[in-house]
Amino acid sequence: MLRQGHLRIVAISIAMFLLAPLAAGAATATLPSWNDDAARRSIVDFVEAVTTAGGPDFVAPAERVAVFDNDGTLWGEQPMYVQLAFALDRVREMAPQHPEWSTTEPFKSALAGDFAGIAASGDKGLLELVAATHAGMTSDAFTQIVSNWLATARHPKTGKPYTSMVYQPMLELINYLKNNGFQVYIVSGGGIEFMRPWTERIYGIPPENVVGSSIKSKFEDTEGAPRIIRLPDINFIDDGAGKPIGIYQHIGRRPIAAFGNSDGDFQMLEWTTSGPGRSLGLLVHHDDAAREYAYDRQSHFGRLDRGLAEGPQRGWTIVSMKDDWKQIYAP
Amino acid sequence: MLRQGHLRIVAISIAMFLLAPLAAGAATATLPSWNDDAARRSIVDFVEAVTTAGGPDFVAPAERVAVFDNDGTLWGEQPMYVQLAFALDRVREMAPQHPEWSTTEPFKSALAGDFAGIAASGDKGLLELVAATHAGMTSDAFTQIVSNWLATARHPKTGKPYTSMVYQPMLELINYLKNNGFQVYIVSGGGIEFMRPWTERIYGIPPENVVGSSIKSKFEDTEGAPRIIRLPDINFIDDGAGKPIGIYQHIGRRPIAAFGNSDGDFQMLEWTTSGPGRSLGLLVHHDDAAREYAYDRQSHFGRLDRGLAEGPQRGWTIVSMKDDWKQIYAP
Repeated sequence: MLRQGHLRIVAISIAMFLLAPLAAGAATATLPSWNDDAARRSIVDFVEAVTTAGGPDFVAPAERVAVFDNDGTLWGEQPMYVQLAFALDRVREMAPQHPEWSTTEPFKSALAGDFAGIAASGDKGLLELVAATHAGMTSDAFTQIVSNWLATARHPKTGKPYTSMVYQPMLELINYLKNNGFQVYIVSGGGIEFMRPWTERIYGIPPENVVGSSIKSKFEDTEGAPRIIRLPDINFIDDGAGKPIGIYQHIGRRPIAAFGNSDGDFQMLEWTTSGPGRSLGLLVHHDDAAREYAYDRQSHFGRLDRGLAEGPQRGWTIVSMKDDWKQIYAP
Repeated sequence: MLRQGHLRIVAISIAMFLLAPLAAGAATATLPSWNDDAARRSIVDFVEAVTTAGGPDFVAPAERVAVFDNDGTLWGEQPMYVQLAFALDRVREMAPQHPEWSTTEPFKSALAGDFAGIAASGDKGLLELVAATHAGMTSDAFTQIVSNWLATARHPKTGKPYTSMVYQPMLELINYLKNNGFQVYIVSGGGIEFMRPWTERIYGIPPENVVGSSIKSKFEDTEGAPRIIRLPDINFIDDGAGKPIGIYQHIGRRPIAAFGNSDGDFQMLEWTTSGPGRSLGLLVHHDDAAREYAYDRQSHFGRLDRGLAEGPQRGWTIVSMKDDWKQIYAP
């Protein structure tokens, strides 16, 4: 047994020697796109506190749940939500088969790219838009439609694919948390099935870790080829006070870290940071007109008002994209 | 570099030498409570096929999703579902505060333990029972109520805690799949929040990997202490054709292995085994009156009729508890 013990020590020593340069490289590379200021420090302090075994704030890995909003937090939401751009493109593509759309709302406004007109059609109009563009096909067909669209669609301002316009500092944050034993989820107001086809490839977050809004669906067993059909009825709206409910239904644990950018994330941060033990709430403030967009209290998409007013006194970190991020997108 | 390469090989060789006895031990211990017959072989053949790198049936670990029904598949469901026993105990406990229950259905029948009377009150009666026993409290309070009950409740026939009456061969199967890179989920007709407090401790399946039926809930932000309140409205019934939908909503991947015991699991197995690539469907047949219970086509709880009739021709494994399992419960 002594000999085995010796061999084990030799093996461990050799392994440590071989791996040491890698580990040192990883340590210096923590959050490299973040300036070394208060925002970055609040993240690192939190992660070090909850991962220090024996420390007063230690949290077991299974309970290290981190939730990220998507639109405006991980990728852009201006000049409109990406999923809205998808819906409008779908309407344009399907319009030849629906001549009546040229004179009926909300399709007339959708075809004209007239947001005010779409908004004027109210919830009923929005639901009709969702029904026409997101329902009536199988689950597999919808996945394919989303994947095909994302492969060819381009952002109207930059001309780049939407999936290349994800925020590099947030990608680093996701990886930093995962490397520290966190379970990372997306909890988005966007459609769950609109996100799942690509979140693993783009963010490293697998489909089962995506929570979002959804329409209903049904299982059909016709002619021995079972399929899931998407229905034109709202199932769940994962926004505002819906986000803690989405978390309860889907994850079943209270997060200890929550990341958002709009008032639609307020209750998610509130729920997260009012739990027992140490927690982290963080809001990304879009204040960088030169490198991205600058908007908050008056924005149609991603309005941030209450979060700016109450966030600091609640101990939440407010990230200035302009001051806290060295770069917005991956080079 | 040559020297580092040599050291690496030495380290790996030593590590393999040290770990070899452990690996051999693990191999001989695969599914030890299963008799070495066709049922066990169908499982092992499947797992070896989908985990053999380069083989025709190889499935990447991320796509190795296995789903297990709970009642009758992982633990017992006779003489009634455990959750129904919980509801009846809750009614008895709360009855002193509800004198009207002694004369109104379904509470009168519930207090008398009269299943036929409860069933006669229909969906409306069942919903009233659920509302009275599962709603009206916070999420945290319900977790505590379930945990307290499970710690003291005893099975009427054996006098043992319900959590000790889980099927040892199925525990081994869960571990065997996890050890082979599978993601293991529960997909149960039972209440998701009734299961989550204990599935990790008993089965090694964490709360986020539990899919089930649910009632609605709402987020309340009163007096700075946010909380989630459980509401007396059905949200989702995860049974029959609902199971593929629960899988679609919650997991977002099609499973490659599904394990059940009743016709409520039929569509889950159908969806799983009609996917592309190799798959496994398995039904546990309760045919062991001596060691557990014997029931199928005529049972009130866990009826198995269509599955017995169609399962074999669909290539599903039918497990005889009597013939295929060396033991039912952990010793």
